[in-house]
Amino acid sequence: MQLGVCYYPEHWPRAQWAEDARRMHAMGIRVVRIAEFAWSVIEAEPGVFTWDWLDEAVETLHAAGLGVVMCTPTATPPKWLVDRMPDMVAIDLQGRPRGFGSRRHYCFSHAGYRAESRRISRAVAERYGQHPAVVAWQTDNEYGCHDTVLSLSESARQGFRRWLAARYTTIDALNTAWGTVFWSQVYRSFDEIDLPALTVTEAHPAHRLDWRRFSSDEVVAFNREQVAILRELSPGRPVSHNFMGFFTEFNHHDVAADLDIATWDSYPLGVTQMFFLSAEEKARWARTGHPDIPSFHHDLYRGMCRDGRWWVMEQQPGPVNWAHWNPAPHDGTVRLWTWQAFAHGAEVVSYFRWRQAPFAQEQMHTGLLRPDASEDQGAIEAAQVGAELAALTLDEAGPVRLAVQAPVAMVFDYAAIWMLQIQPQGADFNPLELQFRAYEGLRRLGLDVDLVPADADLSGYRLIVLAAQPQIGSALQASLEAAAARGAQIVLGPRAGSKSAHLSFPAGDSPTGHGLPPGPLSALAGVQVRRVASLPPGCAEPVVVGGQSVQITRWREDLALAEGTEVLAAFADGHAALTRRGPVRCVAGWLDADGWQAVLTGAAADAGLAAQALPEGLRLSRAGDLLLAFNFSDRCLDAPALPTAAPLLGQRPLPPRGLAIWRT
Amino acid sequence: MQLGVCYYPEHWPRAQWAEDARRMHAMGIRVVRIAEFAWSVIEAEPGVFTWDWLDEAVETLHAAGLGVVMCTPTATPPKWLVDRMPDMVAIDLQGRPRGFGSRRHYCFSHAGYRAESRRISRAVAERYGQHPAVVAWQTDNEYGCHDTVLSLSESARQGFRRWLAARYTTIDALNTAWGTVFWSQVYRSFDEIDLPALTVTEAHPAHRLDWRRFSSDEVVAFNREQVAILRELSPGRPVSHNFMGFFTEFNHHDVAADLDIATWDSYPLGVTQMFFLSAEEKARWARTGHPDIPSFHHDLYRGMCRDGRWWVMEQQPGPVNWAHWNPAPHDGTVRLWTWQAFAHGAEVVSYFRWRQAPFAQEQMHTGLLRPDASEDQGAIEAAQVGAELAALTLDEAGPVRLAVQAPVAMVFDYAAIWMLQIQPQGADFNPLELQFRAYEGLRRLGLDVDLVPADADLSGYRLIVLAAQPQIGSALQASLEAAAARGAQIVLGPRAGSKSAHLSFPAGDSPTGHGLPPGPLSALAGVQVRRVASLPPGCAEPVVVGGQSVQITRWREDLALAEGTEVLAAFADGHAALTRRGPVRCVAGWLDADGWQAVLTGAAADAGLAAQALPEGLRLSRAGDLLLAFNFSDRCLDAPALPTAAPLLGQRPLPPRGLAIWRT
Amino acid sequence: MQLGVCYYPEHWPRAQWAEDARRMHAMGIRVVRIAEFAWSVIEAEPGVFTWDWLDEAVETLHAAGLGVVMCTPTATPPKWLVDRMPDMVAIDLQGRPRGFGSRRHYCFSHAGYRAESRRISRAVAERYGQHPAVVAWQTDNEYGCHDTVLSLSESARQGFRRWLAARYTTIDALNTAWGTVFWSQVYRSFDEIDLPALTVTEAHPAHRLDWRRFSSDEVVAFNREQVAILRELSPGRPVSHNFMGFFTEFNHHDVAADLDIATWDSYPLGVTQMFFLSAEEKARWARTGHPDIPSFHHDLYRGMCRDGRWWVMEQQPGPVNWAHWNPAPHDGTVRLWTWQAFAHGAEVVSYFRWRQAPFAQEQMHTGLLRPDASEDQGAIEAAQVGAELAALTLDEAGPVRLAVQAPVAMVFDYAAIWMLQIQPQGADFNPLELQFRAYEGLRRLGLDVDLVPADADLSGYRLIVLAAQPQIGSALQASLEAAAARGAQIVLGPRAGSKSAHLSFPAGDSPTGHGLPPGPLSALAGVQVRRVASLPPGCAEPVVVGGQSVQITRWREDLALAEGTEVLAAFADGHAALTRRGPVRCVAGWLDADGWQAVLTGAAADAGLAAQALPEGLRLSRAGDLLLAFNFSDRCLDAPALPTAAPLLGQRPLPPRGLAIWRT
Repeated sequence: MQLGVCYYPEHWPRAQWAEDARRMHAMGIRVVRIAEFAWSVIEAEPGVFTWDWLDEAVETLHAAGLGVVMCTPTATPPKWLVDRMPDMVAIDLQGRPRGFGSRRHYCFSHAGYRAESRRISRAVAERYGQHPAVVAWQTDNEYGCHDTVLSLSESARQGFRRWLAARYTTIDALNTAWGTVFWSQVYRSFDEIDLPALTVTEAHPAHRLDWRRFSSDEVVAFNREQVAILRELSPGRPVSHNFMGFFTEFNHHDVAADLDIATWDSYPLGVTQMFFLSAEEKARWARTGHPDIPSFHHDLYRGMCRDGRWWVMEQQPGPVNWAHWNPAPHDGTVRLWTWQAFAHGAEVVSYFRWRQAPFAQEQMHTGLLRPDASEDQGAIEAAQVGAELAALTLDEAGPVRLAVQAPVAMVFDYAAIWMLQIQPQGADFNPLELQFRAYEGLRRLGLDVDLVPADADLSGYRLIVLAAQPQIGSALQASLEAAAARGAQIVLGPRAGSKSAHLSFPAGDSPTGHGLPPGPLSALAGVQVRRVASLPPGCAEPVVVGGQSVQITRWREDLALAEGTEVLAAFADGHAALTRRGPVRCVAGWLDADGWQAVLTGAAADAGLAAQALPEGLRLSRAGDLLLAFNFSDRCLDAPALPTAAPLLGQRPLPPRGLAIWRT
Repeated sequence: MQLGVCYYPEHWPRAQWAEDARRMHAMGIRVVRIAEFAWSVIEAEPGVFTWDWLDEAVETLHAAGLGVVMCTPTATPPKWLVDRMPDMVAIDLQGRPRGFGSRRHYCFSHAGYRAESRRISRAVAERYGQHPAVVAWQTDNEYGCHDTVLSLSESARQGFRRWLAARYTTIDALNTAWGTVFWSQVYRSFDEIDLPALTVTEAHPAHRLDWRRFSSDEVVAFNREQVAILRELSPGRPVSHNFMGFFTEFNHHDVAADLDIATWDSYPLGVTQMFFLSAEEKARWARTGHPDIPSFHHDLYRGMCRDGRWWVMEQQPGPVNWAHWNPAPHDGTVRLWTWQAFAHGAEVVSYFRWRQAPFAQEQMHTGLLRPDASEDQGAIEAAQVGAELAALTLDEAGPVRLAVQAPVAMVFDYAAIWMLQIQPQGADFNPLELQFRAYEGLRRLGLDVDLVPADADLSGYRLIVLAAQPQIGSALQASLEAAAARGAQIVLGPRAGSKSAHLSFPAGDSPTGHGLPPGPLSALAGVQVRRVASLPPGCAEPVVVGGQSVQITRWREDLALAEGTEVLAAFADGHAALTRRGPVRCVAGWLDADGWQAVLTGAAADAGLAAQALPEGLRLSRAGDLLLAFNFSDRCLDAPALPTAAPLLGQRPLPPRGLAIWRT
Repeated sequence: MQLGVCYYPEHWPRAQWAEDARRMHAMGIRVVRIAEFAWSVIEAEPGVFTWDWLDEAVETLHAAGLGVVMCTPTATPPKWLVDRMPDMVAIDLQGRPRGFGSRRHYCFSHAGYRAESRRISRAVAERYGQHPAVVAWQTDNEYGCHDTVLSLSESARQGFRRWLAARYTTIDALNTAWGTVFWSQVYRSFDEIDLPALTVTEAHPAHRLDWRRFSSDEVVAFNREQVAILRELSPGRPVSHNFMGFFTEFNHHDVAADLDIATWDSYPLGVTQMFFLSAEEKARWARTGHPDIPSFHHDLYRGMCRDGRWWVMEQQPGPVNWAHWNPAPHDGTVRLWTWQAFAHGAEVVSYFRWRQAPFAQEQMHTGLLRPDASEDQGAIEAAQVGAELAALTLDEAGPVRLAVQAPVAMVFDYAAIWMLQIQPQGADFNPLELQFRAYEGLRRLGLDVDLVPADADLSGYRLIVLAAQPQIGSALQASLEAAAARGAQIVLGPRAGSKSAHLSFPAGDSPTGHGLPPGPLSALAGVQVRRVASLPPGCAEPVVVGGQSVQITRWREDLALAEGTEVLAAFADGHAALTRRGPVRCVAGWLDADGWQAVLTGAAADAGLAAQALPEGLRLSRAGDLLLAFNFSDRCLDAPALPTAAPLLGQRPLPPRGLAIWRT
């Protein structure tokens, strides 16, 4: 467990660098990420490289005892490159070229830019691949940020046709798989297929889904090319990329398959303001962020790479600049976030950024230091964590990271998100929110959770939740059947098993060859979905689950039950709202966090898990023999779940924004 | 009175067709619409036609005792055609070509596509024009759906110039008619005139109005070309087109003048969610739809064709897929809608669609059957109506349709809608809503209504309502004067008579040659509008009408009264809110349904009509000697207006979603 | 003090002109503005001028004793000109050419149009420059209306590059000044720099700020060319331009530096509906407009030209047509607005327009007369003011305008507005509203205010307010220091001194060379801003100021205080919310009008100004020895501040929409 920081030596006088490095080390920081936006400084003229400044920066950091995370600078190609290849820019969803003057203006499908990406990556890797200061690499920066995965460029159109040809081999196969007979969309060749954008009304869902898949694969291919160069020229150094929060435009599991460390950029306050939380939640959690937003991503990115290695590459240190509103964290919150990340298994928590930039787009984004080099609140709290890490011996050997062993798995599948975004069938059916609300329900019960891909090994889990999983492939079906056979509890959310891989109805043993949801899971779940409806605002349906009244909103399903399927909760009209057949529960509607908590309380009990409703704002994590507790609220908090023994760190009751660690 | 269904044999295995046809007939269905989106299956390669599948489908249906409504497939030109004539696509209002991959991507003004439209229509008509199975034709599908009437194409620009030249002959005449002297917009030739789009601020209203007229005329011309071919090759078969709900982008009366049967596509739940109803109404009517939405259109489309022939071509059978939210109808509602259509004179009610598609854009749109061929709720209720139709003898001869004789006429004029949309003068002045709220007021009083064009014969009506009619042409003026002379009651809504045919002030006998509203009706109404104001939210003005307090919102007018004009209601500042001069009432503001009901109660009484306020959700229709009652509410309903005798069908009180029919 | 009117003889029969002129004069009107949209009538064919109609119109007005304000007609270039130079149109912010068919479709940067602008201006000036009827000139019309300052044209791009080269000389200087090292934005030459639009995310703030400056300078240059022609050909006649309300897209001070008279177009009801007022305010002030909207602009435009000469060139006479809602003013309000303008020093109040147009875009915009030439309410009230002006001797000599001497200065700086718009850092941080709310606070206290530019001479003021002034240049710094030294009270709003001229952090005496806000004012104010936060909705922080509880919303700052700085109000967490050091107050958050009123009450008391909270809707103005009182409310109003002596005009208490004038 280490602290890190993001640093931009090119923004500051060279005379400051040594002092900066000294202060970093004194604060407990050991890792420094640099150079991800430095292309126009490294190569100010085409082919003319200026390395001296970066050499000096690396040496200065190294000399101060700091490890360097070096980056490929491909997120910000310089203007001269764009002027040489004007068609390298992405085309936005309105059909307009994306202008130079911010970042991420390139199109992933442009062969010329792909060559430039390899060229500059090779140049940086050749220079620093063997440098002793370099402890890791980062490719590019925040793939997809600012909606940059999809591009309407000619490069993307041609690439999509090739991708389809490779996937389907014959155009007849594509026509059949998609169902292009609908609305006279039958194609005669792959060269007739355009990108599914700017159509008169909704484009074909299978067409859109494959475009999402293709676009995701382009990110994977782009990243893979850089990784190959880094592995060649910097063997033994782990390669990472910094993913983002609540971002699903490409398949992170696929990109992570080529990486050693998954990292993500954690901005709890910004994300709280920008996403789907209610106005009431945005105000309530304005200064700490919703407690489950960081951990949701910690638990997701922990499941990305082979060995479970993950970092927070950018940790919010104070107010940011990019949300609709940018409140300030309460004192203590930066420390709370840092420890929360360690509790979920982070190796490194790296603050963004060392010193607030005095100019340009992010000048209102705080750093650990203010622009005048004075210490901002983030620095004070980082230093506190640094001191705590130094003082605390959580493991004899000094663990690289805490060992999280979650009893609960939630399946998180990027294609599932795409499918439900393409056909939400109700304006507020947001599959990402549905996933998050189920996760929130688990976390309010004190349960540790792994977010796992659809092809994960589920054999170690006692409770498996599929909150938003329309497609059940044969492998996942088999995993679930095996889990059920061994008695693991399974909870299926609405729309489970409702779609094929081509975003059509699942196959079935009917005269037409089509079946009804939950498709492959019908037998296991003992239900069949006869009708679905999205519920307009004002049409909530109350349901009692485990003695607690909860609201079904946004979505409901009418189920037919196989013999032996139990009804655990019912709608007012008598239809089942929650069923159980053996270890398998089905939820026939949209639930908010309260609703999920009620459903999961029962499922956890059946799984033999000691779930317990925690006070609002309290969260628990278990890692090995450690128990960590976090108070996101404004009150002092206590709970029966907290040990009475003296903690290794902190106290009981927990003060606002306080944390405590016990060995159990 | 018959049931029908929309069917897509091309979506299903041929082996299913005969069984489908058998089940349709068993359900009481007698008419099947097919092939409106089948171009790419009929002509998979340019010039290569594949008829065998369609021949077989037609034969199969025919053999089962079903009549076929055959369609021209021009709503979905195939990709190969678009690739051959890329400029055939419409250009959207942002200036972007509308992409292939959904439907209605063609521009009505493109000469090349017009030729293709004739070519494919001729091919289909040659094949099936004399086929004994074919009982009717449909041209294209839902003209204008997805905002496809207006196009910024070069074809449209050139066509508009020709249209203007034909209309005005000289450019001076156009300059004078429009008033181009304003803001230096004088033109020297028709070739200087562009389409009025993407201007810096609001384009010239007369320019916009003529563009709307031109664009509507292009739809009429497009349709007329197909009708001519069908009449040539399929003589004796009626030709129809399926119009849409709350859709006013082109003049339906003009298109219908070339048809034999007006049909429309009735989706009460979708329309309830998508249009101007309040959030409270959207929730209240989520599962039945607002009761007056279907009937408003029934009464409109009954007035379209010469003989009053009209069908529901597509009847919602369950949840749809295209509204913001897609709730499920309460059990019984599909039957209720079907009988409501018959009560308003429908010949055929045809469900959309036979079986829910398992793939593509509409896979979440229910059918009578589910994708696995099991019966959905719609099938159950269709079969119930089928049985009721078979059992019930409403007329000795078995009428084609019930005979509706409405005592009340509402003028519904497409150009009036365009005028008030072009210059609403208040953000919430929606002329279509104004029409609907007046209609709702009449229907709450149990009155049967004809929606008639501005040039209709008004001699048979005892009450005539012009809720939103800015232009009063000389024929309409004469009709109204004659009606008033014979004592028919006339109610003028706000802005009546406020505009000329060129969307300027009406002519008048003043030094400037201009007059004030209500222009040609000033003498008849005994008022002059001195000032108008749109009222911001929060500025409602209470008014007492017939003892009932109602709210004037959104709009008010200050009237000067001729001697002898009575004030029936006044604003707080003393200005008249409702006047009467002889049989003519003027409403000096925007009314909601409560307000219209209060005004129309008085007018109906003066007209000698037995109007009576019905309980919420109850609606009545009279057809010949039949009285039909419909309960759209969640409660059992009774009313003094209902006969005490035993009904032919149903019972009294009416259960929720129940209906009853009496012979009186 | 005179009345005027805007007149369009080209819209009306020539036979009406003499009668119109007679009626104008009889109503008390003495000045008539004409011809600002007449280009296509003056020059119907390229190079063929038709002057006779305009000659006759000018003679007719002159003969009736009316002076003419002649205009250059460049706001509406005719279609033939656009067809000759299609690239003369501006390109909108979506990249689309702005179409012909309304107005202001030209690009300020297009050299060809600039030449045409000079050519037509010279033609008009040659014709009428020496005409005895012409008493003043107006250039163009409402520069910037409909968002027409910014253009993405190639002309603008090339012009911007030249402008940057002139400003920075070397590209290195630009790179340093902007901070292009951020996100790899370093440029190698000025020719690499594009307009900062359609970028992937936010463009560089310094880039955007310079684009705003360049675009503003293009307006200045465009106007200056016309002014030079008018001065050459019409010496001695003052030149004016009519600015707009709440419009800040270009720097009005820079344009006004070339003018003799600043005029503006006052539409209180339209502006009340269209800008940032709350829904509650929009309803409350629907029929009078917010009382401070007119005076805010009166006080701003009084500070524009050398001698303080200003007019209302267009005064709302009744409902307008262009706001979301267009309510009618209460009777008496047009008179109230007219006198309010005189009270703030207007020379002329000119109504828009003489007679409501019967056609085209503005046909729903009322005039003094209705389209049929009857008198609308505006005419009645204008005539009343005309009679009052004739009867009342406010000054022996008959003053050109009343002498306003305000004790309070508010700095209003266009670049400040741009800076805070470019980086608001919170979705509701609207710098224009912040200025307005501070102004409202002052006016509720009965204080007269000058809105002055940042380089104004501040030596005559006892209270100086900088509500929204991020950049403090050296001259402003010196002015403020001098003012403080002589004991003038200074109030600094949030974000004061937070930015450099290049929209970066201010310079400072730190290791990095950067400082913290308030930058150059830190010593004077005795504070340093350590942290800022924008506050989401629902996160208001209560503060007690002078015994009154007010709310800080939207924005707060954490201040460090120098020794001796007093805390006048504090946040709940103890941080200072309002400080005072000697005569300098700092406000550490966003205040609404209540909050500003509380802060300014204390500051005014310290300044020795007799401030007194007025009843809602009452406003006072002092001009020389005159005291004028205005009642914008619906109630009769009295106040201790009103003299007991008999007024010269009006009465006490003031009736709704009443006014009174006393000599004190």
